[in-house]
Amino acid sequence: APVRLTILGSGWGAFRLLKDICPKTYSVTVVSPRNHVLFTPMLPSASVGTVSTRSITESLRPLCIEKGARLCEAHAEHLDLKKKTVQCRSLHGERYTVPYDRLVLAVGKKANDFGIPGVQRNAFFIKETADARRLREALLTRFEEAACIVARSSTCGLRPSDEQVAQVEQLLRVIVVGGGPISAGFSEHLVDFIGRDVRRTYPDLIPYMSVHLVEWASCTQIHRKDQALREYMLQRLSQRSGVQLHRGEHIEGVTQSELRLESGRSIPYGTLVWNAGMKPVPIVQSADLPKARNDSKVRTDECLR
Amino acid sequence: APVRLTILGSGWGAFRLLKDICPKTYSVTVVSPRNHVLFTPMLPSASVGTVSTRSITESLRPLCIEKGARLCEAHAEHLDLKKKTVQCRSLHGERYTVPYDRLVLAVGKKANDFGIPGVQRNAFFIKETADARRLREALLTRFEEAACIVARSSTCGLRPSDEQVAQVEQLLRVIVVGGGPISAGFSEHLVDFIGRDVRRTYPDLIPYMSVHLVEWASCTQIHRKDQALREYMLQRLSQRSGVQLHRGEHIEGVTQSELRLESGRSIPYGTLVWNAGMKPVPIVQSADLPKARNDSKVRTDECLR
Repeated sequence: APVRLTILGSGWGAFRLLKDICPKTYSVTVVSPRNHVLFTPMLPSASVGTVSTRSITESLRPLCIEKGARLCEAHAEHLDLKKKTVQCRSLHGERYTVPYDRLVLAVGKKANDFGIPGVQRNAFFIKETADARRLREALLTRFEEAACIVARSSTCGLRPSDEQVAQVEQLLRVIVVGGGPISAGFSEHLVDFIGRDVRRTYPDLIPYMSVHLVEWASCTQIHRKDQALREYMLQRLSQRSGVQLHRGEHIEGVTQSELRLESGRSIPYGTLVWNAGMKPVPIVQSADLPKARNDSKVRTDECLR
Repeated sequence: APVRLTILGSGWGAFRLLKDICPKTYSVTVVSPRNHVLFTPMLPSASVGTVSTRSITESLRPLCIEKGARLCEAHAEHLDLKKKTVQCRSLHGERYTVPYDRLVLAVGKKANDFGIPGVQRNAFFIKETADARRLREALLTRFEEAACIVARSSTCGLRPSDEQVAQVEQLLRVIVVGGGPISAGFSEHLVDFIGRDVRRTYPDLIPYMSVHLVEWASCTQIHRKDQALREYMLQRLSQRSGVQLHRGEHIEGVTQSELRLESGRSIPYGTLVWNAGMKPVPIVQSADLPKARNDSKVRTDECLR
């Protein structure tokens, strides 16, 4: 009988493995909460509408059919290494168990909010297709809301009041929290988007728009090795692209419309994008596997075993 | 000074008018809850993913910029024909007033649920881009849910139990309520979609899928003139496409998972699409304008005045 192989995850690793596998030797079950592979580097483009999310995803099902593999759209909740089973919960809440002979962990990581209050509820992440769609819709909603305020005063032949100006500026202020290459890349992307697409469709809004990059102090530690490159990148962002930098900040909390810094300062915003690092998904944290020194990654040998 | 022209709506009529208007003669304000023109005949295709909603919509903003027109993404709530003002409510809840010298009513209609309990909450409509997206996501969710149930039993080497079969059949039963050409067209579209795309991606689900067309008795009245054509169409749907017809039914109510008929019968469903007629939008109903005999349409002369 073929070996029962269970793959947790549907990212690059899982996809490549499934592509190479011999369906005669292995009877494969894939468990993942998403049924597609996502080309993550294009997510920032998708979130401003430059590409469609459909063109950066590929359904796993055709490959599964080719390999005779079962795809369970479910969260893997618990590993029982002794009994060799995975406890799954489908997206509709049903729990069931998948047995295995061999297991492949290819679950990736999830966005880390470092337990800062309000982030989970108010910030946008850039990790899944749904994130990109939500962020794009949020941006467009802000544009329409701001355009509405500007149009309203001009219908009556007036200039917007100081209060309206402040309101519009807040709506059109995008804060990116992070400090690594992804945040910087996303900020630059946003500036391009404003300069090209927004300028064409909402020319009246351009004077009120701003992009802020808040460099989260802990990121500076993580990326210490590439300090010179980082400095160059941030200089370029600020000088060439007009991104407003806030460097080495500690963040206290996030409300629906304000980012509160430990320095006591607050920055009101319309849209907050959080890109400040990753953390392991719960099943890796809870699994009884040898962990690397900083206790989050599974320790592996050079063959990733 | 140019004449202040206010256009309510952003459909075919409004778009054509705006395209032809002389920006020197008219200072235009467009009020509509949606900021784009929608090619409605393609919505059924969009709701099964054959085309993207982006390719069947066109932003109104570029044309507005060209014509120096203001676009207010807002609901027109009340007409004051004496004061010549339109009361608007933005999508964010703010109320304001737009004055006009000339007014164009191009607001279209909205889906009619005839006050039947549960329809508004449980059924899908095919009227706006968001409807198509919601319907597509609902269908895909049902497919994944059903695939999960089928895959689960096959992981343990079993055939699905009778209970599971019933559950999967319900999930994959689509009911279209209507009886006019749009419902028939949509049903046929759905059958094509199942035969091509679903067969390729979810081959295991095909035996469980079914499409039901419930002909709403009142529709028969409306479309009486084209009776022969209707009969031909319905015969073809049932014989060639395998759509299950339920003719001349009165509908009592809709629950989350069941369509209840006045005959006492109930049909359990996974997805319910409602396409049983249109009704005027609230602003037309409330406006103090001469109405046509069936009291819903505004009465106009041959020049639509």
